[in-house]
Amino acid sequence: MSSKEEPAGAVAERQNLGSRSQRKQLTRDALLEAALRLMKEGRGFTGLSLREVTREAGVVPTAFYRHFRDMDELGLALVEECGMTLRRLLRETRRAGVPLFTDMIRRSVLVYKRYVEDNRLQFLFISSERDGGSPVIREAIRREVAHFTNEMAQDLRSLNAFPGLSMATLEMICGLVVNGMLSTAADILDLPPRRPELDQELVEDSVRRLRVIFLGALQWREKPAAAKQPLP
Amino acid sequence: MSSKEEPAGAVAERQNLGSRSQRKQLTRDALLEAALRLMKEGRGFTGLSLREVTREAGVVPTAFYRHFRDMDELGLALVEECGMTLRRLLRETRRAGVPLFTDMIRRSVLVYKRYVEDNRLQFLFISSERDGGSPVIREAIRREVAHFTNEMAQDLRSLNAFPGLSMATLEMICGLVVNGMLSTAADILDLPPRRPELDQELVEDSVRRLRVIFLGALQWREKPAAAKQPLP
Repeated sequence: MSSKEEPAGAVAERQNLGSRSQRKQLTRDALLEAALRLMKEGRGFTGLSLREVTREAGVVPTAFYRHFRDMDELGLALVEECGMTLRRLLRETRRAGVPLFTDMIRRSVLVYKRYVEDNRLQFLFISSERDGGSPVIREAIRREVAHFTNEMAQDLRSLNAFPGLSMATLEMICGLVVNGMLSTAADILDLPPRRPELDQELVEDSVRRLRVIFLGALQWREKPAAAKQPLP
Repeated sequence: MSSKEEPAGAVAERQNLGSRSQRKQLTRDALLEAALRLMKEGRGFTGLSLREVTREAGVVPTAFYRHFRDMDELGLALVEECGMTLRRLLRETRRAGVPLFTDMIRRSVLVYKRYVEDNRLQFLFISSERDGGSPVIREAIRREVAHFTNEMAQDLRSLNAFPGLSMATLEMICGLVVNGMLSTAADILDLPPRRPELDQELVEDSVRRLRVIFLGALQWREKPAAAKQPLP
């Protein structure tokens, strides 16, 4: 990918690409990509400056404001992109089948692992910033994750995988799955190269954890009144 | 607490406290506390400078080196302190009883919530740095969390809460619990003040999630050969 060697903004400029709106989109993408790249080595979002991001993207600082009001707005755009990436993932795992059998769980985990590796920078961003420094970004990530969880719950409902469970319970189950997934993302990204036995261990551990959750879901009985009881 | 108004190092100095080793300990604590305080507003550990930490602690920069070789060593000391905090928590929740009944799960969750609120800065540090910027710190946090998980698994084993489950499975179950707990810490710390209904919702959600996990654990059947099968 040429963007690894030279800033995408510069590439867009040089190629003198199509219409003005296409160029505008390219610069916007270059700014987002630059921010992700700068965070790759573990720097938090709150530590990035506007000037640095434009330098990394190969555009002049004033160009920034044609796309974003400030760094927070760029951060929110990043979260939105990550949200879209998550929802694409859901479409891919949908093909893996109902997650009630170990083989299907394993297939989903393998799809997920590959997906995290293919979208490395985005998953690094989500996993470090979901408990990271900026409350605005943290809140936005939570909303995207809640949205994703809700979509997964709707999937389980339409598969009728857990008959008798309410939507609220399905969301709670999916919340457990998603939370586990996001923690696993950090582990996947930290896997050392050329250690297939560690890759396999991670996959099997994930499968076992998901099995416990789904076994628990199958045993769950709804108690409509329980949620309304006051705390002791 | 006076340490909120003036640096603890200065307090130690002024009070001209006891022996040299006591003073040394106080300065060390002041440095650790200063680092935690600086991270309170969401700054990552990798963004802190040695000079800032000493300034916040009210000691001269050279004093730092009598306690730590560099910032990484201070970070590791922080992780170690957090590890001790986690293990104390285990002793407190042990009194809550076997986590097989909703009431006992709720009691443990309430103990935990109070504990996170009482150790706010440490839990902020763990939850932001466990997927944060420094690989050294990240790795150290993982080790502490694994240690904690192992101790929790030993507790469950000695309570004989899940007869028939291997130690490896108990650790996997506890891993799910601990991972959920640490994610909840961030949610607890973000709870707005004077909204008891949100507090209660968070507690009930945690209880439900833990119930799913323990229900799954009760259903788990060991398959000794499964772990050794190659991936498809």
